[in-house]
Amino acid sequence: MTDLLWPGDHRAGQTFSDAAFLAAMVRVENAWLSVLVEAGIAPASARADLTTAISPADAEGLAVAAEATGNPVPPLVDLLRRSCGGEPGRWLHRGLTSQDVLDTALMLCLRDALDRVGGELTAQVRLLAELAEAHRDRPMLARTLTQAALPSTAGVKFAHWLTGVLDGADCLAALPALAVQAGGAAGTMAAATELAGSPAGALALSGRLAAALGLADSPPWHTTRSVITRVGDALVTCCDAWSHIANDAATGSRPEIGELAEGRGGGSSTMPHKSNPVLSILIRRTGLTAPALAAGLHAASAASIDERSDGGWHAEWALLRTLSRRTVAAALQTTELLTGLVIDTDRAATNLAAAGDLFGEQRTMTDLTGRTSGDDYTGAANHLIDTALRRARQHLGEAT
Amino acid sequence: MTDLLWPGDHRAGQTFSDAAFLAAMVRVENAWLSVLVEAGIAPASARADLTTAISPADAEGLAVAAEATGNPVPPLVDLLRRSCGGEPGRWLHRGLTSQDVLDTALMLCLRDALDRVGGELTAQVRLLAELAEAHRDRPMLARTLTQAALPSTAGVKFAHWLTGVLDGADCLAALPALAVQAGGAAGTMAAATELAGSPAGALALSGRLAAALGLADSPPWHTTRSVITRVGDALVTCCDAWSHIANDAATGSRPEIGELAEGRGGGSSTMPHKSNPVLSILIRRTGLTAPALAAGLHAASAASIDERSDGGWHAEWALLRTLSRRTVAAALQTTELLTGLVIDTDRAATNLAAAGDLFGEQRTMTDLTGRTSGDDYTGAANHLIDTALRRARQHLGEAT
Amino acid sequence: MTDLLWPGDHRAGQTFSDAAFLAAMVRVENAWLSVLVEAGIAPASARADLTTAISPADAEGLAVAAEATGNPVPPLVDLLRRSCGGEPGRWLHRGLTSQDVLDTALMLCLRDALDRVGGELTAQVRLLAELAEAHRDRPMLARTLTQAALPSTAGVKFAHWLTGVLDGADCLAALPALAVQAGGAAGTMAAATELAGSPAGALALSGRLAAALGLADSPPWHTTRSVITRVGDALVTCCDAWSHIANDAATGSRPEIGELAEGRGGGSSTMPHKSNPVLSILIRRTGLTAPALAAGLHAASAASIDERSDGGWHAEWALLRTLSRRTVAAALQTTELLTGLVIDTDRAATNLAAAGDLFGEQRTMTDLTGRTSGDDYTGAANHLIDTALRRARQHLGEAT
Amino acid sequence: MTDLLWPGDHRAGQTFSDAAFLAAMVRVENAWLSVLVEAGIAPASARADLTTAISPADAEGLAVAAEATGNPVPPLVDLLRRSCGGEPGRWLHRGLTSQDVLDTALMLCLRDALDRVGGELTAQVRLLAELAEAHRDRPMLARTLTQAALPSTAGVKFAHWLTGVLDGADCLAALPALAVQAGGAAGTMAAATELAGSPAGALALSGRLAAALGLADSPPWHTTRSVITRVGDALVTCCDAWSHIANDAATGSRPEIGELAEGRGGGSSTMPHKSNPVLSILIRRTGLTAPALAAGLHAASAASIDERSDGGWHAEWALLRTLSRRTVAAALQTTELLTGLVIDTDRAATNLAAAGDLFGEQRTMTDLTGRTSGDDYTGAANHLIDTALRRARQHLGEAT
Repeated sequence: MTDLLWPGDHRAGQTFSDAAFLAAMVRVENAWLSVLVEAGIAPASARADLTTAISPADAEGLAVAAEATGNPVPPLVDLLRRSCGGEPGRWLHRGLTSQDVLDTALMLCLRDALDRVGGELTAQVRLLAELAEAHRDRPMLARTLTQAALPSTAGVKFAHWLTGVLDGADCLAALPALAVQAGGAAGTMAAATELAGSPAGALALSGRLAAALGLADSPPWHTTRSVITRVGDALVTCCDAWSHIANDAATGSRPEIGELAEGRGGGSSTMPHKSNPVLSILIRRTGLTAPALAAGLHAASAASIDERSDGGWHAEWALLRTLSRRTVAAALQTTELLTGLVIDTDRAATNLAAAGDLFGEQRTMTDLTGRTSGDDYTGAANHLIDTALRRARQHLGEAT
Repeated sequence: MTDLLWPGDHRAGQTFSDAAFLAAMVRVENAWLSVLVEAGIAPASARADLTTAISPADAEGLAVAAEATGNPVPPLVDLLRRSCGGEPGRWLHRGLTSQDVLDTALMLCLRDALDRVGGELTAQVRLLAELAEAHRDRPMLARTLTQAALPSTAGVKFAHWLTGVLDGADCLAALPALAVQAGGAAGTMAAATELAGSPAGALALSGRLAAALGLADSPPWHTTRSVITRVGDALVTCCDAWSHIANDAATGSRPEIGELAEGRGGGSSTMPHKSNPVLSILIRRTGLTAPALAAGLHAASAASIDERSDGGWHAEWALLRTLSRRTVAAALQTTELLTGLVIDTDRAATNLAAAGDLFGEQRTMTDLTGRTSGDDYTGAANHLIDTALRRARQHLGEAT
Repeated sequence: MTDLLWPGDHRAGQTFSDAAFLAAMVRVENAWLSVLVEAGIAPASARADLTTAISPADAEGLAVAAEATGNPVPPLVDLLRRSCGGEPGRWLHRGLTSQDVLDTALMLCLRDALDRVGGELTAQVRLLAELAEAHRDRPMLARTLTQAALPSTAGVKFAHWLTGVLDGADCLAALPALAVQAGGAAGTMAAATELAGSPAGALALSGRLAAALGLADSPPWHTTRSVITRVGDALVTCCDAWSHIANDAATGSRPEIGELAEGRGGGSSTMPHKSNPVLSILIRRTGLTAPALAAGLHAASAASIDERSDGGWHAEWALLRTLSRRTVAAALQTTELLTGLVIDTDRAATNLAAAGDLFGEQRTMTDLTGRTSGDDYTGAANHLIDTALRRARQHLGEAT
Repeated sequence: MTDLLWPGDHRAGQTFSDAAFLAAMVRVENAWLSVLVEAGIAPASARADLTTAISPADAEGLAVAAEATGNPVPPLVDLLRRSCGGEPGRWLHRGLTSQDVLDTALMLCLRDALDRVGGELTAQVRLLAELAEAHRDRPMLARTLTQAALPSTAGVKFAHWLTGVLDGADCLAALPALAVQAGGAAGTMAAATELAGSPAGALALSGRLAAALGLADSPPWHTTRSVITRVGDALVTCCDAWSHIANDAATGSRPEIGELAEGRGGGSSTMPHKSNPVLSILIRRTGLTAPALAAGLHAASAASIDERSDGGWHAEWALLRTLSRRTVAAALQTTELLTGLVIDTDRAATNLAAAGDLFGEQRTMTDLTGRTSGDDYTGAANHLIDTALRRARQHLGEAT
């Protein structure tokens, strides 16, 4: 899967692709059919491997057919029934509704995306911890509101970037476990209760489905959509953190500043001398557009109504896919940016020296205290780096 | 091109697809090469039909390669040069920069989208004018803030829908002509000036390119992006108007109200009795998500900097594509909704009668004026319908 | 503080008002000055009660003066120095920067907002638990995609609302503790290190400030803004949940449905018969607009650059205030809506009966299982209510 | 009116303030009452000057009272009736509905905002035309994707800024005339028809109201809201253009670049050496947040339903006010930025020289053409400046 208008999209590979989503829906139907058989509700003859009944080539036809029912599950169920026939065809999907299949498939695709993002965050934590340690004492100008502020170090800058990435990882870690949904036509588990013979039996089916898919069990969440919005919020928080890094990298690579450079610069179609900070630019692009995607999920959630929403639900799917793929791509781009980042410490020192007298504030402090500190006026820089490194070690300890 | 997670996307067909965008970029390169030959700058031997040098199958590789340079034009130029060789390969793209090709290709794809949207708007104007006329005298309850307000007619409702659609068409008509861009590496037309031998010659090349592509000529707009945002604003204004229609249709088709129904209702994967207002729901979904896409274009425009933006530009492409395709799909869905719309005039009359005494305001007026109007208290309903129909006739006269 | 264009804004009272924000900034300066004295850095003669040096009437002048420096802290510091003079004037604000004061004041105002929202959530949990229990067995039609779906109960609907509110409360509970900021001019604690004589001493000052203000201690977060965005995300998640309730209430109060009504309906300026679901409408309004505010915080965070951002930081303040006040107002409106909510159980039963044959799915299940369940086909409704009630009791147990 | 959290808000003065909005509502009621008298519908004894019956101090109470009805018009009408009594009290507001008064008052406030923005745009066109002319030949590095691209001139940069501002002015000029609304309770002009004795008479009342207020006449637009969204789109387009200028100015004022500076730099609360580009930063802040406000208006428009929307309408008011005030403030800040802008032409020349060999593209052209152009490789720079200046002169000619 590629996107000519979103360079880097191919990095997301099959994450949340049409093929992956189709496979996820089939996986949900397949797991449910197995659950019905294993619970003794459907006969053993109903057992079938639905995952082989569908191929990625079916996605196109299902996408077209999905419009007539508003979502792709009804045509998928039809296709599975035609393909399997017999007892499997008779039993599959019984007790579920379209939204159960679609929402649970969203969870499976989100798990894939979150796993990939989480892996990159850990790689970035490792890279940034190394950068912060390695450049702990390298002088670098701290800038505020675009202007020269005070002396600082490259290590502090990397510690800030690290803190942002750790904050993103914290947001992911704070997410509730991704949950299955098996509420049936109106979220009351009515059909499943019929099948299982009791409400408790229906709830047990939901639990079995969750176990089969490695998801958490949950009451139906057809119109309580914080399940979705919280994931979106966590993803965009990561994009924010990477965008901060990319902003600093792009500005730091301006030739007049020249403190930072991407290891792999991008060329121009006509100017041979150029080396553009392409990764930074593409990450910034993600940062510019990701917040609206997460906000779209909230708008959809706020439009919740009845026992299945009349448009709000339908708005979520593409938003989730787009946000997930872009976040995965930006995660990988950021890891690559940090891996190849070139720090010109001489230039940083030169820029700091050229910034003129930055010590007016220090002199004021000396006036107040009567003490003269002879140091470089970098304050608690090393302690702040250490604090970030401690968080990094803790994250890496937990992540491994 | 289909999208499993955006049912109805297939209606947009090739509009702004990867294949269409690739073809548009090639068309720009091809036209420019012809212009160079026709202006006597490149030799006749440089003439080539670039459009046959590329196939849709190249899109995938170009999409991957696009990341290294941040946009797909450099690998496309490489591919064209390898494919054509000789004098065509030596001359193609000379005088242009990536942004010229990409932005002009955006314009070509937008023209396609705007043409399709415009065609549907005209069809909708015709349908709504007929509906407003046909139901001019059919009683229907006017509702405000969800509650029964006053007597009105179905014709007035359709006239309001019609007004919204005409307003959308007005927004499209008010757009500046879509314009070519040929500013060269930094927007100064430096290379084209070298090629043409003079600035005036360079400007003439831009004019020839515009003529060849059927676009307006324009000075470079590399970092003045209202060209883009205005199109986005017009498209979302259409989506707003359709969403209004869909809101009324979805609510009117609630069984307790039952005044409106989609001719083709969508089925359920488990409940045989259901007929869902699927088109309305999918149009509402578009209305929920389109504003953020147009706002993304503004955010990108507001991020303009230097002579080519470091992320803002890159954010626009996918936003434009997504907004265009969704608008085209929603346009077609709305036309279909209006074509098949079923109005239950008996039910409307029953609902109106059941609303109880709506004439308190009228009695107050009688108290004031001393006159008793014996009519149905629908005020200037017919005049308002006539006003909308006049606008419709004018639009249809101009559109044909 | 009121807002003629946001009816209900007065409910937010002084939460995040200009006066409250000014008082919060002064409180930060005051606490810091005390910390300097208590740590033995400033002399005892520097102690002063800054909170009496400023009145709400100063807000207007400070707001005007704030433009020249881009934020209100420099003119506030000037005013405090002029007002206090002497040793207090000499020592106050030493070691801090504008961003420290402003960001920490934001935290104090957010704490107030979060406390108020949290209190309302608990009240709503109590009300909804009662509603769900009281209407556990009251038949109500479940609707999906606007159409009649299956039999359900009013209790299930209230349990869904309750789940949404509990999810919002979970989001608030998952927030990291609101943290102080005392990074100094460039986030390196340089001045504080001078004052304290050591980095460890500077860090201790930050800890003392946190303790004095009842906030968590933290390293500086000048350009790592998830501190802000996470609060925004939690607030908007609450607004989503309330909007869901309001959507159901507004639609349920349509006269043709008539199952729900606001205890206090709003009147019309001209139609005496009307009773509008005004609270629902105003809550829906909040739900429509809150996502963009939280997204604005992410966009600002993604614009982080250098050691103090050149616009991203400045964008946050009004977004936070607006989001906070509107969330508080919507919280109170929702509590009032739930307090007065009128459920017409007869009408609900009538609507369910009028929905026709909803049992096709059940017959399919009977065909499959050979069993006939004679019940009302509400499935696990009671169990789902119980699950929500258990969460409610747990929340109420922890909240008290 | 000031806003401590939006430095510069005071520049908007009374534009769209609570007091101004209240006055605008009263002006609408007053004009309508006069129209009723002048049309011979109300007796001469009903004539009254309503504008003196209300003071700004009433805004607070009306804001609180507005919640009960969802908008401030009903309590305003009550207050006016109590205040005037007699025949005026008996006749005022007859034939109107809350939405008529509120929407028409929005138009009056928007007119004020648009007038102020328009005036600043013209001032900016004049300033930028002077800058472009004055620096026509001043060398300046063109930068793309943050990197050195080609030689250009300061004049070209200012011409680009000018083009953006002219585009904004074009958007304002393309707006439909702001229109009155007098649709009555359900948009059918029912009450007005009773009062006037005929539909034609009712339409004439609307026309008279429009004339009295200096607005365009229009059929009711209760739920066709492009009237509102188009204004929002135009305002945000202006903010985009100013943000582009501010981005260039902020980056150009980085000490390592040093080509641009604000005449009035902002100070720091602790660092005496700093001069921050405060206006640029505050304008950037506006650019970051304005798109979401205009998008909110579209979201509200897309939520249109029935004959008065249940939340979408209510969402518009504060969005319009905030967008209007911020646009006015940013307009004034941009004019001030341009007025005081300092261009360091020596530094610009030095930076250009330091950028190294930028002539690789030119040599390629020479290889192709066999010609050597001895010039500075600024291409059609002067022609592009001339084009922008022609547009500027045309704008200034029309504006005066």
